[in-house]
Amino acid sequence: MAAPRVYLAGPEVFLADAVALGEAKKAICARHGFEGCFPLDNALDLAGLTPHAAGCAISAANEALMRSCDLVIANITPFRGPGMDPGTAFEVGFMRALGRPVFCYTASPLPHTARVERWAAGTLRLRPGEGMEDADGLLVESFAMVENLMIDAAALASGGAVVVTSATEAAPDYRDLATFEACVRAAAVLPG
Amino acid sequence: MAAPRVYLAGPEVFLADAVALGEAKKAICARHGFEGCFPLDNALDLAGLTPHAAGCAISAANEALMRSCDLVIANITPFRGPGMDPGTAFEVGFMRALGRPVFCYTASPLPHTARVERWAAGTLRLRPGEGMEDADGLLVESFAMVENLMIDAAALASGGAVVVTSATEAAPDYRDLATFEACVRAAAVLPG
Repeated sequence: MAAPRVYLAGPEVFLADAVALGEAKKAICARHGFEGCFPLDNALDLAGLTPHAAGCAISAANEALMRSCDLVIANITPFRGPGMDPGTAFEVGFMRALGRPVFCYTASPLPHTARVERWAAGTLRLRPGEGMEDADGLLVESFAMVENLMIDAAALASGGAVVVTSATEAAPDYRDLATFEACVRAAAVLPG
Repeated sequence: MAAPRVYLAGPEVFLADAVALGEAKKAICARHGFEGCFPLDNALDLAGLTPHAAGCAISAANEALMRSCDLVIANITPFRGPGMDPGTAFEVGFMRALGRPVFCYTASPLPHTARVERWAAGTLRLRPGEGMEDADGLLVESFAMVENLMIDAAALASGGAVVVTSATEAAPDYRDLATFEACVRAAAVLPG
């Protein structure tokens, strides 16, 4: 039987050593019986395209790669603020709608509510009867989840999981392969 | 023929006047021949549930509501940082995977690259041959797009659009119904 194909979503594609990280993730996948598929695997000829057309070509290739995969393992480590990368969130929703199992992992040990509290740095205020809101008047979700409820709940409803680092370090480590591997292990016990 | 159903995605569900805003959006939809469906329309009995179980119930209802809709109009106004709300990004990806047209609008006049530059406040550095990266070593996307390329490109590939406010105000206005209505108008000219 062919190894299940895993779409490797996450903001590490933006790191300078993204290709090497993708190879490391694919090697971990292979050790656990999966074929890892990294967005940068797409061999695209973008020469001569405008930046906008190049972006559209990358998107089309990523969407096709997702459709070819059996599940997704998404790096939801906070990205430029308390929340995860929107591109990765898009991909989690995409795979969820296709009915594919969604696994997420994060290098931040803090749940959503605590991350927003830290980001807000004392500027949260009480919304009576509902909870806390930020300076823009936006309620802080407090569902005891790691991310926005659509993310955590999609993972669980799909038969997946959300794996949180066991480290106490609070700075985001987009190269956290230990938590990634724990997530791959969780996926490896999925019923065939 | 029944009016096409529009899933109204966006972080305004977190505002104190979210229900009134949802009603205002639904009225605008009706004026343009659509039936607007707002996540808070879901009548859920969450009494007695743990926060986590309540979050899962809200997610399941939102996913079912999305599946019942013909297209999505998503508010991608920046949320707690330079990027959009991850929950909304999830929903954009979800509807894209289902093949439904994706329309997005934003109350920020700034494209993605400019928003990240402003957020970084002078801390960006050059990655030779590739562009600028932030203090975490993450490349700043520069595809002349409004959001992460997966968002803009999904809207365009789906037959939708990304509508940007015509205002010059840079502070996010989650209650921007003028740009929302411009987006509804763009959706109203979709071929049947």
